[in-house]
Amino acid sequence: MSRIAICAPSTPFTREDAARVIALAEAAFPQADLRFHDQCFSEHGHFAGTDDERLTAFLECANDPGTQAVWFVRGGYGAGRIAGEAIARLGPAAGEKTYLGYSDGGMLLGALYRAGIGRPVHGPMSGDIRRDGGEAAVLRALGFLCGSGEGLEPDLDGRPTVAFNLMTLAMLVGTDLMPSLAGHVVLIEEVSEYLYAVDRLLFHVTAHLAPMGIAGLRLGRVSDVPENDRSFGMEPADMVRDWCARTGIAFLGRADIGHDAANKIVPFGVAGATQRP
Amino acid sequence: MSRIAICAPSTPFTREDAARVIALAEAAFPQADLRFHDQCFSEHGHFAGTDDERLTAFLECANDPGTQAVWFVRGGYGAGRIAGEAIARLGPAAGEKTYLGYSDGGMLLGALYRAGIGRPVHGPMSGDIRRDGGEAAVLRALGFLCGSGEGLEPDLDGRPTVAFNLMTLAMLVGTDLMPSLAGHVVLIEEVSEYLYAVDRLLFHVTAHLAPMGIAGLRLGRVSDVPENDRSFGMEPADMVRDWCARTGIAFLGRADIGHDAANKIVPFGVAGATQRP
Repeated sequence: MSRIAICAPSTPFTREDAARVIALAEAAFPQADLRFHDQCFSEHGHFAGTDDERLTAFLECANDPGTQAVWFVRGGYGAGRIAGEAIARLGPAAGEKTYLGYSDGGMLLGALYRAGIGRPVHGPMSGDIRRDGGEAAVLRALGFLCGSGEGLEPDLDGRPTVAFNLMTLAMLVGTDLMPSLAGHVVLIEEVSEYLYAVDRLLFHVTAHLAPMGIAGLRLGRVSDVPENDRSFGMEPADMVRDWCARTGIAFLGRADIGHDAANKIVPFGVAGATQRP
Repeated sequence: MSRIAICAPSTPFTREDAARVIALAEAAFPQADLRFHDQCFSEHGHFAGTDDERLTAFLECANDPGTQAVWFVRGGYGAGRIAGEAIARLGPAAGEKTYLGYSDGGMLLGALYRAGIGRPVHGPMSGDIRRDGGEAAVLRALGFLCGSGEGLEPDLDGRPTVAFNLMTLAMLVGTDLMPSLAGHVVLIEEVSEYLYAVDRLLFHVTAHLAPMGIAGLRLGRVSDVPENDRSFGMEPADMVRDWCARTGIAFLGRADIGHDAANKIVPFGVAGATQRP
């Protein structure tokens, strides 16, 4: 039995969609015991409850010794508002867990990795059930949480690796939540940003990552790019290649991650060491 | 006679709008000699010409000993792609000039200020002629470039001050272009960003500015906020107050700057020392 606690560090979910995730889990992974924290359905303006509510729910899930994994229900925005305080209040049980999410959840994944607490993992969330083909994403995450390595990003090698949404990483760099990524392969993906904004983020992120001595960058999917009044004139892979060349970072090719149902799983660190909760 | 060289470090302008700016200047400030560089009308994808073209035009304007000011024609995106190389290739004549612009132009203003070259100034650009009431903004900038202090932001005090678009500042912090702002009053403004994105930028920027020991933050206008599927639940001034309290930065109230025709002028450093070109 694998008990998975689900909370919402960012934005809220609905009970209807939670029921769909539970039904999917019961059919495919009867050994998974999903516990949606009530806070997943709380609303406070943009957020799934006040900062205090989101912090308290995360701490209850992470500090519970009976739980093997903490699964973020959705992204959006909000995890960075509680991550610093959350890290300060984690106890010993928090270090024995897997933490799974992506997008805005990367703020907490990064902070946990910096603090050396538990196993942060970049991968699908319950909220992906809303996507076309989203059941596959949810099943991939559940499979991973139940011990399968099938959903892992296919080109993970022996080097330590992390994965982030590009905007999330751009907001994380240089802050007290940012881990050192010396020697790491860094995977990035983006969604719903103009290409000029992606280029701007790449300027910022490569300026911060280059001095760390990362092993290189890999580019996931850049999706749902809004139409601009004129074409940007460069594709995302060329932009990454350009910023890597300017800053002396190795460009290591594409990555199978993104804000979509095909989003594969990237355990922070060396994959083999972290893939079982 | 005040010769003002106009170039486009970011995105292109049109000859029609340039003619309107020239007509306005001829009527109100016959002592101003406006020279639109041809590069203002060059197009390369998103940009006003390739990086090389934009860099070359900026250097021609900045290194010309016959010119008293370099005026950026518009923002958009692109100045950060050439700013590092530009600074490295500025000669002695560049140090005798005023550099006026805002928005994406803040990348160059920040880099110039870090390098101690010339007098960077945050204020209206030729492109503001396109706004409702934009003639007033253009006239304010021209007046300043001809020696008037009338268009200055009304609450500048004896402390060194800078002003930035919030996104531009967020992309600048921690990079080789970022000046130290110890003891500075920092004015910020934003346009066309969701409030959750403004809050996210404030997290990032305050995390970088607090350790510098800035004198405090003042908030300009946050305009054209896109409608989200739900209300954020906080107004921009409350967000700034909150992030200032979290990071130990003094919140010094509102500022009369923004992406609009009322945008006032903020010379970098101490205003009295820099307001005449």
